[in-house]
Amino acid sequence: MHAAHASVPHLLVIGGGFAGLWATRALARAPLRITLLDRSNHHLFQPLLYQVATAGLSAPDIAAPLRHILRGQGNVQVRLGEAAAIDAQARTVTLADGSVLDFDYLLLATGATHAYFGNDAWAAHAPGLKSLDDALHLRRRLLLAFERAESCDDPAERAAWLSFAIVGGGPTGVELAGTLAEIARHTLKNEFRNIDPAAARVRLVEAGPRVLATFPATLSDKARRQLERLGVEVSVGVPVTGIDAGGYRLGEEYVAARTVVWAAGVAASPLARALGVPLDRAGRVPVEADLSVPGYPHVFVAGDLAAVSRTDGSAVPGVAPAAKQMGRHVAAAMRARLRGRQAGAFAYRDFGNLATIGRMAAVVDLHGFRISGLLAWWFWLAAHVFFLIGFRNRLVVLLNWAWAYWSYQRAARIILGRDHDQAPPL
Amino acid sequence: MHAAHASVPHLLVIGGGFAGLWATRALARAPLRITLLDRSNHHLFQPLLYQVATAGLSAPDIAAPLRHILRGQGNVQVRLGEAAAIDAQARTVTLADGSVLDFDYLLLATGATHAYFGNDAWAAHAPGLKSLDDALHLRRRLLLAFERAESCDDPAERAAWLSFAIVGGGPTGVELAGTLAEIARHTLKNEFRNIDPAAARVRLVEAGPRVLATFPATLSDKARRQLERLGVEVSVGVPVTGIDAGGYRLGEEYVAARTVVWAAGVAASPLARALGVPLDRAGRVPVEADLSVPGYPHVFVAGDLAAVSRTDGSAVPGVAPAAKQMGRHVAAAMRARLRGRQAGAFAYRDFGNLATIGRMAAVVDLHGFRISGLLAWWFWLAAHVFFLIGFRNRLVVLLNWAWAYWSYQRAARIILGRDHDQAPPL
Repeated sequence: MHAAHASVPHLLVIGGGFAGLWATRALARAPLRITLLDRSNHHLFQPLLYQVATAGLSAPDIAAPLRHILRGQGNVQVRLGEAAAIDAQARTVTLADGSVLDFDYLLLATGATHAYFGNDAWAAHAPGLKSLDDALHLRRRLLLAFERAESCDDPAERAAWLSFAIVGGGPTGVELAGTLAEIARHTLKNEFRNIDPAAARVRLVEAGPRVLATFPATLSDKARRQLERLGVEVSVGVPVTGIDAGGYRLGEEYVAARTVVWAAGVAASPLARALGVPLDRAGRVPVEADLSVPGYPHVFVAGDLAAVSRTDGSAVPGVAPAAKQMGRHVAAAMRARLRGRQAGAFAYRDFGNLATIGRMAAVVDLHGFRISGLLAWWFWLAAHVFFLIGFRNRLVVLLNWAWAYWSYQRAARIILGRDHDQAPPL
Repeated sequence: MHAAHASVPHLLVIGGGFAGLWATRALARAPLRITLLDRSNHHLFQPLLYQVATAGLSAPDIAAPLRHILRGQGNVQVRLGEAAAIDAQARTVTLADGSVLDFDYLLLATGATHAYFGNDAWAAHAPGLKSLDDALHLRRRLLLAFERAESCDDPAERAAWLSFAIVGGGPTGVELAGTLAEIARHTLKNEFRNIDPAAARVRLVEAGPRVLATFPATLSDKARRQLERLGVEVSVGVPVTGIDAGGYRLGEEYVAARTVVWAAGVAASPLARALGVPLDRAGRVPVEADLSVPGYPHVFVAGDLAAVSRTDGSAVPGVAPAAKQMGRHVAAAMRARLRGRQAGAFAYRDFGNLATIGRMAAVVDLHGFRISGLLAWWFWLAAHVFFLIGFRNRLVVLLNWAWAYWSYQRAARIILGRDHDQAPPL
């Protein structure tokens, strides 16, 4: 396919997330032909995905077409497609449609997906949140639960429709729980005639001893109190032992709930297995210091798919800044290779940790500088809008947020798609 | 279910479109219990639906939750659900989930759906545009066609992916064709490496002698010339005689095209048949002068589902202003009935006819005051943004339009959902 330019090495980048896109952009002037392959046509600003799931933003507000972002970069061709198999030795990638792409260098940056820790049967009852399709599915589930409660005559069933559980007390679980409580208490106020949405039970369930475990304990405590003030019931220290269509089991207690959301764990994208190298327990690829794959110096892994240690031995977290830094490092390593030099070692620069909790509540930890509450929320908002790609998106997101802030309303409360869940038809 | 208020008559409104919603709002102070039943949770501003299909607007930009619109109207209960059967005699409606609603008065306002004139097999290959789900499906199809052309090595297949046909030269067909030509010529410029999107063939196919047949012939001519200037190939006077996965047949000519859009005809919602009264050829309900159903004075029909004649014998068109007027008339008729009086006859007030064609091109006919081109486009824009429900939506839509105007970009170029079409998997 690229025979005409056979003299220029071909870099295939799989995944247009933070790692893949940042690597691609940093190679704008490199003497390479780059193919960026993604199964979606857009780069997704994943940190705001929970806002699409909770009807605060529209899907296009937090996504931009990869083609459009890269239109001016002449050495890149964007290709929509799904990688099915990798032959690192033969340097080929086979797509789901059967076509084959060859490469001289490969960057695998396909990120992470939900993990149910061996309980795959839970997946059908507790959807997770990784893509825009996931977010729209979750939005439909959350909004339909209130609708079903409203048109339901049986008190027990109605209570089950108004019972929500979010499994996992990390940033995504905290964001979802806080926002869902706000929706129930404020957004839907006065809109129903048979139910009181504020009576909904929103429960955040964490098996570990505290929420936001990657934060200092004082901020975890503050987050918990802020959640409770928003109306979230926080359960820590007891694991979920079962999830089915009717509810979930917490330790020995069975709780009726028609809506359970999975925010408890991620595993590396299954494509990592295609490399044929040893993976860590989460399915990630332990990489060399320059982020290349052991035994395959022409193959790099970056982002959530890479298992990388910090100098103190702790793992580099699966967050957007780390993925961007890895992407840029792979670009630097590629440039060094093209000049015949050795690439340096990747060093993660940790700028701190932010998590939002809900309306006017967040926690921020910047190397000992710790804030929580309203000020932290403004800081979180500014950082996220600043990093959002594209001028228009920033403006629209700010507008939606300003509107939500003053009106308590949410702009995207639109149920899309037909409902193919286990729930009875409407 | 409403036993507690059994003394107050119960009006059941089916359909939260322009007719049903306007009737409901006009009865805010009437001594009635009103149930508004819709299978979607939102009112849809249908005149801008083509903008969602062509990636200019997000789905939530042109929709608002019915519950939210009516939250302050104490005599209304909104119910999400789909009517499956009507017994006008027994005064009951059975929903798809098996529950039964009884009524004293019924307003049936379920509008229209696509009609393939007996060629139901075409539906799978030529989707239409009536709901937000339709619009998102169409958006996916249109954007994927360019993606497939880009990754396709066979010249004939590539040309088929770049061949688009819009069947039907009414306002929807004209809007879609003009906007699609703009996307191909401007929006996607410089973004592909193997194809030139501007080489796409966008064809508008109308079986009748001219496009926009409800406008004066001079404006039809102007519209045609504006379409051609935007890059649309306009074919009139020859009917489509076949549509399959590979293309369409126009008269005797078979044209390879992987994307055919149906904008050629609508038929009344199939629920009309449930009334058991004679329908007209398009499946609409011929109503009495007060919009009630012959033989069932307690049942009204309004909007696209009603077959109503003007004083000169011509039919009231299926447009938003007519639906709103009918909705308000049914409200007035209901109020008269409740006071024991006879309701007056409905008279359609025709304010004129607008259609947009594409970037800076439109036609406007206000009873002899006829304009076209840029001025008509500004008039069309102002009218549509003004009538759009909700302050936030207006602002967001204006912002998106301003951005699209200056940048030639489209805000919602995001492919959502997995592709279950006849096309090969990516």
